[in-house]
Amino acid sequence: MAKKMTIIMFSDDMDKTYAALILANGAAAAGMEVTMFFTFWGLNLLKKGGLGKLKLSKMNMLGLGRSMVKKRMQKQNVASLEKLLADAKELGAKLIACEMTMGVFGITKEDLIPEVDDLAGVGAYIADAKDASINLII
Amino acid sequence: MAKKMTIIMFSDDMDKTYAALILANGAAAAGMEVTMFFTFWGLNLLKKGGLGKLKLSKMNMLGLGRSMVKKRMQKQNVASLEKLLADAKELGAKLIACEMTMGVFGITKEDLIPEVDDLAGVGAYIADAKDASINLII
Amino acid sequence: MAKKMTIIMFSDDMDKTYAALILANGAAAAGMEVTMFFTFWGLNLLKKGGLGKLKLSKMNMLGLGRSMVKKRMQKQNVASLEKLLADAKELGAKLIACEMTMGVFGITKEDLIPEVDDLAGVGAYIADAKDASINLII
Repeated sequence: MAKKMTIIMFSDDMDKTYAALILANGAAAAGMEVTMFFTFWGLNLLKKGGLGKLKLSKMNMLGLGRSMVKKRMQKQNVASLEKLLADAKELGAKLIACEMTMGVFGITKEDLIPEVDDLAGVGAYIADAKDASINLII
Repeated sequence: MAKKMTIIMFSDDMDKTYAALILANGAAAAGMEVTMFFTFWGLNLLKKGGLGKLKLSKMNMLGLGRSMVKKRMQKQNVASLEKLLADAKELGAKLIACEMTMGVFGITKEDLIPEVDDLAGVGAYIADAKDASINLII
Repeated sequence: MAKKMTIIMFSDDMDKTYAALILANGAAAAGMEVTMFFTFWGLNLLKKGGLGKLKLSKMNMLGLGRSMVKKRMQKQNVASLEKLLADAKELGAKLIACEMTMGVFGITKEDLIPEVDDLAGVGAYIADAKDASINLII
């Protein structure tokens, strides 16, 4: 049986999103079953056009601003956030949107990208994470 | 034997505290043994009246301020932080205060809420986490 | 076989670095195999002199500034960051620098402290973490 990984996507910082998507792709490419739970700020990532609006978690990263980080990433052959998300999906990763966050902030299913696999609550996360080998929250 | 979950409560941001307490309640409700270790900023959550003083990790969340977040949470039947903590305790979650943090910041047992189960150090965390199914730090 | 712990060092905040190094030391002292993966901001910690430049994740911590936190830590017999890192190494912890981050920000092996054990990518992390008992990202 394939080992599992879960990531709670709590943040919508650009740098954390890169890290999480790279981790998800790495795990999926290694044959793991990956589930990403998008909650609180992280739900922004699943909104249509959301990945294009992210900011760095600090004003600048090792001296670089947001657009420079994107350029440098590209130069190192790191895919864009949109491509990383598409790749993760293609490798079988599941994207779950937090129903509670949607309710609290008045976000509907129509606001979200079609790549979302399911809407769910904390119970679904616990059921998944309790048998997973790697559980992260970012 | 019940599966275990540990959460290191490093942060005292309101949004992260909501997320952590919802996760703790979800796990405890699913029959897991939950232990929360409060350290660094997170120790503020265990101070008398501490849960009433939290701020959001960002200026605003999806456009909403702190009091609006609380109102929206309530409207969606998400319990208050105080109620979530009480519920977690009732479901058997253990609350551990980090002794080192207390020493560093001159916080005494009398400063903490009576719901605290124990004062402990990193050794107790490791002993617990090494056999747990879900380990998170927030 | 010894149980394993991995920590992804994503942040270079002083308080988070203290917490992570204390956790790494606690796990290594308890006989666990510890691997720390330094990526994104966390790579700053491995740069020569990097540990001396860290800032708190918030303006102040429970009312204290950066130098006061260091003094209070010392008074409570918490070792300095440099000593904590050296101790972790001596207890067998492995320090891995993220190759991608190095490429993106033009950091070379010569910029890093000699204590670094290896340069690696996400594949190495997943291979390690999928069999570990404790996996954290900070």
